[in-house]
Amino acid sequence: MESDQGFKIALDEAKKGAAEGGIPIGACLVAADGKVLGRGHNMRIQKSSPTVHAEIAALEDAGRHPASSYKGATMYTTLSPCDMCTGACILYKINRVVLGENKTFVGGESYLKQRGIEVVNVHSAECETLMRNFIHDHPEDWWVQNMHKKSS
Amino acid sequence: MESDQGFKIALDEAKKGAAEGGIPIGACLVAADGKVLGRGHNMRIQKSSPTVHAEIAALEDAGRHPASSYKGATMYTTLSPCDMCTGACILYKINRVVLGENKTFVGGESYLKQRGIEVVNVHSAECETLMRNFIHDHPEDWWVQNMHKKSS
Repeated sequence: MESDQGFKIALDEAKKGAAEGGIPIGACLVAADGKVLGRGHNMRIQKSSPTVHAEIAALEDAGRHPASSYKGATMYTTLSPCDMCTGACILYKINRVVLGENKTFVGGESYLKQRGIEVVNVHSAECETLMRNFIHDHPEDWWVQNMHKKSS
Repeated sequence: MESDQGFKIALDEAKKGAAEGGIPIGACLVAADGKVLGRGHNMRIQKSSPTVHAEIAALEDAGRHPASSYKGATMYTTLSPCDMCTGACILYKINRVVLGENKTFVGGESYLKQRGIEVVNVHSAECETLMRNFIHDHPEDWWVQNMHKKSS
């Protein structure tokens, strides 16, 4: 699964984010026919943005499409999607969400499944390391700004 | 309720959107102390954007805030929020969503309630008229691009 082009692009995007000093989360939206529709990474720090998460950036990069373009599409993301990005995948009736890991954060996976979206976790050690390094180096940008409660 | 400053601002934003030829949906994020944190309107048509809905625009306009800023906050929006915007309100633990109407579209109201967010419908005839006029004049921009199935 990790050899999927969409996942590789999402991981490249996460690395771009890391290189920019941002939160290393990347995403890539791929149509049913394998065409890459959009790609992007989290811009919270780079743009002081509360809404440009990786999945949102990928959808925005794809631009406006008719419903048919999203039919059978897959959203690749390096991290379990938050509630907002979960909702975005539901809104556009994306077929499948492939996520890199959910050890550093668990988002709306069960709600995605409840709404009929397939969820695949590829358990990527590389994605997890990117996140763990970021959280270690910038705890204030993850725990406080990210609204997540720090677990013990 | 319609006399609330936040709702008035959301309605003004919807009218701005209409004047720009866009989908007339506006939103305003107000903190617990009454301070207006952000405002915006749907930019699907103006920016060919699939993600800049009114609530997302208001959150983005507000910029980055610590979790404490959203505590007790209200998201005013002229239309029942879609799944993405529902998720965004949940992500930021917004306390209350005040919506203008849900006759032209019903979004994630029940999920908001399920996640502990108060939902208030002000049943605004003005919001409904704005939407009905838009849908009448631009059906292709509402039914096809918006992913909603046209009801009979």
